[in-house]
Amino acid sequence: MKKRTALPLLLAGLLVAGGSQAADPYAKFKELFKPLPAIAPIPADNPQTEAKVELGKMLYFDARLSGDGTIACATCHNPALGFTDRIPRAIGHGAARGPRNSPTTLNAAFLTSQFWDGRAPTLEAQALGPLQANIEHNITLDKAIAVLKGFPEYQKRFAEVFGGKDPVTPDNLAKAIAAFERTLITPNSPFDRYLAGDESAISTQQKKGMKSFVEKGCVGCHNGPNFTDGNFYAIKVPGSTDEGRYTVTKKESDKHAFRTQTLRNVALTYPYFNNGSVWKLDEAVKIMGKEMLKTDLSKDEVDDLVAFLHGLTGEMPKFTIPALP
Amino acid sequence: MKKRTALPLLLAGLLVAGGSQAADPYAKFKELFKPLPAIAPIPADNPQTEAKVELGKMLYFDARLSGDGTIACATCHNPALGFTDRIPRAIGHGAARGPRNSPTTLNAAFLTSQFWDGRAPTLEAQALGPLQANIEHNITLDKAIAVLKGFPEYQKRFAEVFGGKDPVTPDNLAKAIAAFERTLITPNSPFDRYLAGDESAISTQQKKGMKSFVEKGCVGCHNGPNFTDGNFYAIKVPGSTDEGRYTVTKKESDKHAFRTQTLRNVALTYPYFNNGSVWKLDEAVKIMGKEMLKTDLSKDEVDDLVAFLHGLTGEMPKFTIPALP
Repeated sequence: MKKRTALPLLLAGLLVAGGSQAADPYAKFKELFKPLPAIAPIPADNPQTEAKVELGKMLYFDARLSGDGTIACATCHNPALGFTDRIPRAIGHGAARGPRNSPTTLNAAFLTSQFWDGRAPTLEAQALGPLQANIEHNITLDKAIAVLKGFPEYQKRFAEVFGGKDPVTPDNLAKAIAAFERTLITPNSPFDRYLAGDESAISTQQKKGMKSFVEKGCVGCHNGPNFTDGNFYAIKVPGSTDEGRYTVTKKESDKHAFRTQTLRNVALTYPYFNNGSVWKLDEAVKIMGKEMLKTDLSKDEVDDLVAFLHGLTGEMPKFTIPALP
Repeated sequence: MKKRTALPLLLAGLLVAGGSQAADPYAKFKELFKPLPAIAPIPADNPQTEAKVELGKMLYFDARLSGDGTIACATCHNPALGFTDRIPRAIGHGAARGPRNSPTTLNAAFLTSQFWDGRAPTLEAQALGPLQANIEHNITLDKAIAVLKGFPEYQKRFAEVFGGKDPVTPDNLAKAIAAFERTLITPNSPFDRYLAGDESAISTQQKKGMKSFVEKGCVGCHNGPNFTDGNFYAIKVPGSTDEGRYTVTKKESDKHAFRTQTLRNVALTYPYFNNGSVWKLDEAVKIMGKEMLKTDLSKDEVDDLVAFLHGLTGEMPKFTIPALP
């Protein structure tokens, strides 16, 4: 777990660097941010193709990839609900309730690790976990592959996308889903348009929120295009006893630590925190101030920050629902 | 329950009526069918508007209209799966398994009654049933209305669509969902194009299937644009003890009777029958021959009929997934 003590130094350096503050009181804060790229990074061993993305979309929506045929990726990462399920903790196979809130699939392509505890390094590695978890999809990989092989159309599409003698494999299943997920990015939010030079894309309140976001220290962890440094920090949220990254690393210092969450589309991805215990964004902001920054944010500061965060809702990916075989 | 004894007479009359059979051996059969209209019938008390359809689409996809926030209309009537769930019997709240197979929402707008047992006369009357059923959405209407009222965006949209002082009502909820469902129709199937004059839209095998469909008597019940007469017939399918329409009417003659199912998109809406006990269309056709027509269909007849039925898959409605508040 990284220490947060470097933060004041980082900010001090950054704040001195700005030069145009006389003309625009927000310019020096603006310089600390980066727009969300319109294209996700593509790994060398899983190039994007249109056919692969289409296949991945089919798999993402296919509930047959589950023990009782009712749970697809899209069930908990539901496009209608900000690619989450908007319930505190995921409900999977047999109505079992999982231990954590379903994170959004939006912009997951920009994360440096997947899951709340970062236990998967890539989207490809992530995809096969929930399939096999008995309180999620509850299907073995052997069974999932058998299901897919039962459909001539899947056979054909896997062959077209991946080639080879026996292309319907767990590895290729994961690659296709990951390829689709790399299209689930949300550029061009009001804040991105502001960063690109459109001064009126966000309100003055939102600019004040941006200023607070820097001055109060939120930006120390929520930085970069996706508003996350990719590091893990211990956090105490209401009702949670979750040991977080400790369950992966068994390092005492990782107890109750979770990867910094993206703030992109945070207005859509309620309820908040690892246990989904908080429904309101203002409450979540207040808790983050208190727990992570040891600051009691004022009502005005919270309101400004919430307004700022609403400016991070980008353009949703548009696609038609696939017709599955 | 209607008697099926009138069928041979009906067919005899119809078959004599054809006149061009010398030139085209299938013309006299073709005349017995009707294409699916491109627009569903609209009731006078629920006119279609674009805003109402959009609101209805949102409600159709909204899982918050359920006891634990995970079950939407789209869960069991899933657009990716032919607007069904492709499991034998529906799975609802708490992973409870319902007694019957989820019928497709596609072309339900053309049905003269809703549900397997016809217990709802309209789409509007249908919509509120599954919401309240404790093994489906498991939510009271009061709770559902409270959920919707909790979102300013829903308040606004209901007001725009329905007007009035307190527009978020069960009645209007049902009307909006029904309006959306009236857009879920699938015209322009290969068979419809054939009926419209494109002789090559279906294969010779499919034409032979059409002939068998008439001569064997399937058309006796599966007739009209939506391939259903809207009547109820007792049917014995593997594993079913379901009393069907009897549970609604308590008339002895309605025991085990179900409304004639549409055959539109039947290739997509497996598994078949009230209990979803049969996965293969050829097997379902064979059972229908034996049970309903007292006929042992030959392998060739079954193959032709199945080919014909595949020609009833129309153009799927295309829409983007709504972004819910």
